[in-house]
Amino acid sequence: MSATSINLAVIPGDGIGPEVIAEAVKVLEKAVAAEGVALELTNYKLGAQHWLETGETLPDEVLEDLRTRDAILFGAVGAAPGDTRIPSGIIEREMLLKLRFSLDHYVNLRPSRLYGTVGSPLANPGTIDFIVVREGTEGPYVGNGGTLRGGTPHEVATEVSLNTAHGVERVVRDAFRRANERPRKHVTLVHKHNVLVFAGHLWKRTVEAVALEFPEVTHDYLHIDAATIFMVTDPSRFDVIVTDNLFGDILTDLAAAITGGIGLAASGNINMDRTAPSMFEPVHGSAPDIAGQQKADPTAAILSAVLLLDHLGYTTAARKIEAAVVADVETRTGEPRSTAAIGDAIAAAL
Amino acid sequence: MSATSINLAVIPGDGIGPEVIAEAVKVLEKAVAAEGVALELTNYKLGAQHWLETGETLPDEVLEDLRTRDAILFGAVGAAPGDTRIPSGIIEREMLLKLRFSLDHYVNLRPSRLYGTVGSPLANPGTIDFIVVREGTEGPYVGNGGTLRGGTPHEVATEVSLNTAHGVERVVRDAFRRANERPRKHVTLVHKHNVLVFAGHLWKRTVEAVALEFPEVTHDYLHIDAATIFMVTDPSRFDVIVTDNLFGDILTDLAAAITGGIGLAASGNINMDRTAPSMFEPVHGSAPDIAGQQKADPTAAILSAVLLLDHLGYTTAARKIEAAVVADVETRTGEPRSTAAIGDAIAAAL
Ligand SMILES: CC(C)[C@H](C(=O)O)[C@@H](O)C(=O)O
Ligand SMILES: CC(C)[C@H](C(=O)O)[C@@H](O)C(=O)O
Repeated sequence: MSATSINLAVIPGDGIGPEVIAEAVKVLEKAVAAEGVALELTNYKLGAQHWLETGETLPDEVLEDLRTRDAILFGAVGAAPGDTRIPSGIIEREMLLKLRFSLDHYVNLRPSRLYGTVGSPLANPGTIDFIVVREGTEGPYVGNGGTLRGGTPHEVATEVSLNTAHGVERVVRDAFRRANERPRKHVTLVHKHNVLVFAGHLWKRTVEAVALEFPEVTHDYLHIDAATIFMVTDPSRFDVIVTDNLFGDILTDLAAAITGGIGLAASGNINMDRTAPSMFEPVHGSAPDIAGQQKADPTAAILSAVLLLDHLGYTTAARKIEAAVVADVETRTGEPRSTAAIGDAIAAAL
Repeated sequence: MSATSINLAVIPGDGIGPEVIAEAVKVLEKAVAAEGVALELTNYKLGAQHWLETGETLPDEVLEDLRTRDAILFGAVGAAPGDTRIPSGIIEREMLLKLRFSLDHYVNLRPSRLYGTVGSPLANPGTIDFIVVREGTEGPYVGNGGTLRGGTPHEVATEVSLNTAHGVERVVRDAFRRANERPRKHVTLVHKHNVLVFAGHLWKRTVEAVALEFPEVTHDYLHIDAATIFMVTDPSRFDVIVTDNLFGDILTDLAAAITGGIGLAASGNINMDRTAPSMFEPVHGSAPDIAGQQKADPTAAILSAVLLLDHLGYTTAARKIEAAVVADVETRTGEPRSTAAIGDAIAAAL
């Protein structure tokens, strides 16, 4: 890339969001400066706190403004679990999911890697290095459903999972492309096609068809229940997992847990067609219980910035940050460090 | 119970099903004989092999005949994954799920317990002793969905999750009842109500309402993604989990994995209103790769027989088998034993 600046939207959000994003920006700024690239930051105040103050989730003008940026760096949103002033899930759906859907973030990319000494809860984790390509714009996440006779003994509540050939094919092709670039070149489709026949067969047929375009990539299939078993008994078997929005949500939290926790898990909500900016965010939430105390681990946010740089083509800067993170993580002793201290250490090692 | 015989339907099924069921019957027969109770067995040939021979999944007459039994002991069904003669999922849906739905098995009970020395993949599993009360007759398992423009680039596939106040309330109440009988008296609802709003809120509201009937039982809530994290980082936190059909499917395989594998995981598909016989089955599948080789562990099938006895009220016999299983499992050395050898050892210890 020859651009000399990155026009970056920053949504710190709630809870620990602002703290971890401050460190990610610190590291990002230093890494791109070394390449002669400037960061132009635009901050957006959004999230549960903003909703409490204004009643706004994601106004149309803000969404349009976000569209003009090169990428979005996102912290975390969500109020304290006990806070009943905020209708449950409203920020998640009308802000976070609205961003993913409106900006067509169809590839929800979540890498999982176990770094040297970092504590996995598994006794024998082995080598863990896989990516999950989670579909981001369809499935049970479309918000299609309803309630009939709500609050009565005759209530019926539905949730409709919508899956399209268009939506499934583009994310499956993305997974095969990524597998093709990896040494093991293997794709595992995870679904539950013995029960969810209609959606499951669309996914299965699509994988069979797209596989023909990638003769060097092998592929297999696992039901979601079996996939969770392998995740704790033989995670090394995975290279690239492709799956739907809900199964991907579940599997990536489990994947984060076995590779040392969501303090390290990064993600990208990527629009591969580049018709809108992509958004990069740690997998963790806003963790209100430790907010403002400099206790949060900014590593997941920093690794999300790495995915951001990769997406924008600044691969040199991306590799530098990644190496600094790996060096930092591999030498951790368990001694607690502040959020800023971790960010400083990684920035210093660039 | 004063009945002097149990009228038991046995569906050994495919793969390792017949081998593990033979051991469960052996143990069951001996345990109830000691109480002066006879087992009257009726064998049903059903499953993938039967489908290949006859084209039948579960004929109506067979279903009606099964209704006349006191309970059903079920092995496992399913052909080898590579066998393309059998349409994918047909046995699962038209036989196994048809049984669960037709016989109104609304409580899919799956206990998880880590026995002494049995290998969990977790480095520090702690004490694991919880039950999952999985809804068995609703949710995304209802088979409601369809395909529009199948096989074209404009295909749309849907899956509809159906949830009713009737269905949710009875299973939630069952979970609270069970929690009320346990020392820790705690229920955790697992769902994803921040995304699946309609179904999620029905579940949440129902838990709040039913909780009022059980003042001694505490309860909390976890999203399914967070629940998988706790399952590997702090499984001791769980006492009774209540959840929907699909989340329950996923969580119970993961729960089986962390407690030493699906070779030990038992389940009951229970009709608590006793309007039809309940069905007891190991969580594992038919494992065609090791079928007929006496390699399968019959423990899950034997523990399923324990759940069967508990359901029918033969608690003395149930506790005896359970104690024999625990003693056997806790002294396992990892030395392989045949399916029959394990069954014999447990029967001998009764
Ligand atoms: C907050 C929630 C809506 C979100 C999701 O379910 O996608 C989160 O769990 C995630 O994985 O990014
Ligand atoms: C075989 C399949 C339909 C079944 C299910 O999904 O319920 C199995 O996984 C189980 O957990 O009993």
